[in-house]
Amino acid sequence: MQVGKASIKFEEPPVIESMASIVGKKEGEGPLGKLFDVVEQDDMFGADTWEKAESALQKQTADLAIEKGDIRKKDIRYLFAGDLLGQLIATSFGTVDLEIPLFGLFGACSTMGEALNLGSMTVAGGYADKVMAMASSHFATAEKQFRFPLSYGNQRPFSASWTVTGCGAVILSKNKKEGIAAITGITTGRMIDMGIKDSMNMGAAMAPAAFHTIQQNFDDFNVDENYYDKIITGDLGQVGRAILLDFMKNKGHDLETIHTDCGIEIFDPDSQDTHAGGSGCGCAASTLCSYILPKIKDGTWKRVLFVPTGALLSTVSFNEGETIPGIAHGVVIEHIGN
Amino acid sequence: MQVGKASIKFEEPPVIESMASIVGKKEGEGPLGKLFDVVEQDDMFGADTWEKAESALQKQTADLAIEKGDIRKKDIRYLFAGDLLGQLIATSFGTVDLEIPLFGLFGACSTMGEALNLGSMTVAGGYADKVMAMASSHFATAEKQFRFPLSYGNQRPFSASWTVTGCGAVILSKNKKEGIAAITGITTGRMIDMGIKDSMNMGAAMAPAAFHTIQQNFDDFNVDENYYDKIITGDLGQVGRAILLDFMKNKGHDLETIHTDCGIEIFDPDSQDTHAGGSGCGCAASTLCSYILPKIKDGTWKRVLFVPTGALLSTVSFNEGETIPGIAHGVVIEHIGN
Repeated sequence: MQVGKASIKFEEPPVIESMASIVGKKEGEGPLGKLFDVVEQDDMFGADTWEKAESALQKQTADLAIEKGDIRKKDIRYLFAGDLLGQLIATSFGTVDLEIPLFGLFGACSTMGEALNLGSMTVAGGYADKVMAMASSHFATAEKQFRFPLSYGNQRPFSASWTVTGCGAVILSKNKKEGIAAITGITTGRMIDMGIKDSMNMGAAMAPAAFHTIQQNFDDFNVDENYYDKIITGDLGQVGRAILLDFMKNKGHDLETIHTDCGIEIFDPDSQDTHAGGSGCGCAASTLCSYILPKIKDGTWKRVLFVPTGALLSTVSFNEGETIPGIAHGVVIEHIGN
Repeated sequence: MQVGKASIKFEEPPVIESMASIVGKKEGEGPLGKLFDVVEQDDMFGADTWEKAESALQKQTADLAIEKGDIRKKDIRYLFAGDLLGQLIATSFGTVDLEIPLFGLFGACSTMGEALNLGSMTVAGGYADKVMAMASSHFATAEKQFRFPLSYGNQRPFSASWTVTGCGAVILSKNKKEGIAAITGITTGRMIDMGIKDSMNMGAAMAPAAFHTIQQNFDDFNVDENYYDKIITGDLGQVGRAILLDFMKNKGHDLETIHTDCGIEIFDPDSQDTHAGGSGCGCAASTLCSYILPKIKDGTWKRVLFVPTGALLSTVSFNEGETIPGIAHGVVIEHIGN
């Protein structure tokens, strides 16, 4: 059912039937380390290039989600997936062997939100009994593409984030009464450009988009922060979180205790030297499938607004002096049962 | 309604209510020149970089589709859009001012097919009364990204295609009895990798994907080539067409007269030196909105299978010696009325 300007409330909410998360060594050493399904010690994932490593990461995570759910691959009708790389090469190569019809998505680090938006629309709309939503990032492919060759040992400002090597995948199902959690609604974001140009401060570039999507969610569903047990953004990091909280406070919403951010949860900045926090589409996706969904499943949180955030830049746009527009997609995830 | 393994048949087919196509000077000099809404003589579209030119092209085409349909921008609930550039920067920057919730898509040159797949699912599923589907490419941004700086004056083999400077946008609507055409079904493609490695022969890389999607469409709908008045691929060009026709013939299907390709229609290879044909997501999108849809509207063709095709490569994957997987998404477009 269409709700407000940019939201949907599902009359028959799709259920998350299975999930998997695989991360790299550094993520395994962070605060969520014990929660991931697999912590791979070899950041090459057995491949001979970083890009093939990220493809292998996607393939392994997809296979694990299928295996954990005891689901047949051929019963998954669509795959909604993406990554950060130009022309989505991690996804393109990583999903060939799955042989599942693919919708390739790019929403920068918001991609898991975009995949869950479209995946749940597809299941609730009766177009599929099962779909998979997946997103990945890899520290080394992202550094190579967006920043500097790793061997430069380049220094990073404190506002910079650390791209997560990780992948998260969920399988959404129709007509299920039991499962990990239910997706009861979505709020789709739009491009927001506040003129930020500093690619080493993507939290600041994305915070206005997160603000816009959360505010839109409140308006569309006629609720406020009290409706949720947690509001969890993707990878704003410490800098972006401070901006988001300021923006929300100006509108009369106090998110101080209710808000957290996957990028803040996934690393310990003091011991891991990760500065503002984790980032990359694998950050929100792997944190969802390790830390967030189990807490919804066990009832610690009954209702969560999950808001992956993306900063839309490329080295070309950055070098041409362009701004960094942001986008954020909201997903309402609820506990099943009492 | 789910049909077969990878298709949907719409019980209430979404109607294409408005369309627009804008192209560059060279496309305006080609065989379809008089059919485009606008032929822009300035390939910079008034901007100071090629990327901003492509963003301006998207913005102008979206605005024109809205204007031609006499539609209010705020009545368009979702935008499904993409381009060829790393991190979709043409779309990201081109769609900020539209202020419409955005699903950013990447399917290489198949993106218009992907946008029409998801857009029609969204409208038929009751999630929106109106959505826009759009895709663009620009010769200069694509050459800069994938090949050589234009000023090198690099030579091209005859199997190479010429990236179209163009954009096509359609507005899909629910509950319409009149309009340009109806989308009655879709067949979603999956990644197909036959091991082709020559980036100057993308027709060969994409032909197996086109073959797979057309064959899947025949199987799912239990039809054959006689069901359609035309089967129109995206940008296989002359080389890819020959391969597709061979593959289909081996399965007992003669597509010789019924098949054409947007990349073949849009340029005259003899006078325009475009070799195998046009390519880029703007090729299928602008040809759809200038040449194909008017012929469906006036009843010349009653039922068309439109199959945009994409070759998934980046300079990184190519330089690492990877293959070029392909994908193709099918859209069944039908004449409205008798």
